Amino acid sequence: MNEIEDLFPRGGENAAYAKYFLGKSYLNMLSLEGVVIGNVTFEPGCRNNWHVHHAKSGGGQILLCTAGYGWYQEWGKPARKLAPGDVVNIPAGVKHWHGAAKDSWFAHVAVEVPGEDCSNEWLEIVDDEQYEKLA
Amino acid sequence: MNEIEDLFPRGGENAAYAKYFLGKSYLNMLSLEGVVIGNVTFEPGCRNNWHVHHAKSGGGQILLCTAGYGWYQEWGKPARKLAPGDVVNIPAGVKHWHGAAKDSWFAHVAVEVPGEDCSNEWLEIVDDEQYEKLA
Repeated sequence: MNEIEDLFPRGGENAAYAKYFLGKSYLNMLSLEGVVIGNVTFEPGCRNNWHVHHAKSGGGQILLCTAGYGWYQEWGKPARKLAPGDVVNIPAGVKHWHGAAKDSWFAHVAVEVPGEDCSNEWLEIVDDEQYEKLA
Repeated sequence: MNEIEDLFPRGGENAAYAKYFLGKSYLNMLSLEGVVIGNVTFEPGCRNNWHVHHAKSGGGQILLCTAGYGWYQEWGKPARKLAPGDVVNIPAGVKHWHGAAKDSWFAHVAVEVPGEDCSNEWLEIVDDEQYEKLA
C-alpha cells in the first residue's frame, strides 16, 4: 500500500461529505476567505460519487495534486491517472469524479472557482465494476 | 544549501517580474482559467520587493507553501518563517513581501483572489540590512 507524506495537514474525517464518497476521506480547509480552498486526502480505493458543480456563471473546481496517486474522470471519457504536480481544471457543468488509486493514498488541494449561484449535484457511485477496470 | 524537490514544475525564469525581485525566481502558471494560479520558486536569498495588491473589492493572494523555507512579512510586523504546508492569506491593500530563506530554495503556489479593478503596486526592495536580520 502506497503511504504518503502529507504536505498540507490531513484534517479530520470528511464527515459532512461522507455520504457522497465510497471509502474514507479527510478534509482540511486551508482558506475560507477570498477563495475557498480545501485539502482532501483519500484512503486507497476511496473515491467520490459522480457529481456536477453547477453555476450560473463561473464556478467549477481546480485540483492541485500533492501526494500519492489517483484518478479523475469526466463522463464518457477515459479516466486520467493523477500524480503529484498534476493540475485538473474542472469546468462547471461537467459530470465527473475523482479519488485515490486502489493501491495508493492520494491527496489534492481543491480550489473552488468563485461563481454565481454555485451548487453541487451529487449523483451515482463509481461502482466496483467501473473502478476495477482502471489501470 | 537546502535544495528542494519540485512538487509543481518549476517553469522558466520569471523574466516578466524580474525587476521586482532581488535574485532569481521561476514562474509556472498552473491555471489561467477560473482562478489564476502560479507556482513560484525562489533561489536561496531571493525575495520580491515590498508590494501591495490593490482592488476595489476582493483581490489579494493566497500562498500555499510546497517546498523549502521562506519568509512572509507585512509592513510593521515581524517576519513569519514559512515551511511546506503553511498557508498565507494576503488581503488586498496590505504592504508585504515574500521570498526564500537565505540558505534554502523555496516554492509556493500563489492563488490570485479574484476582484474588481485589481492592480499591483511595486515598492522598495527588501534591503540586505532588513533581510540579514531574519533568523
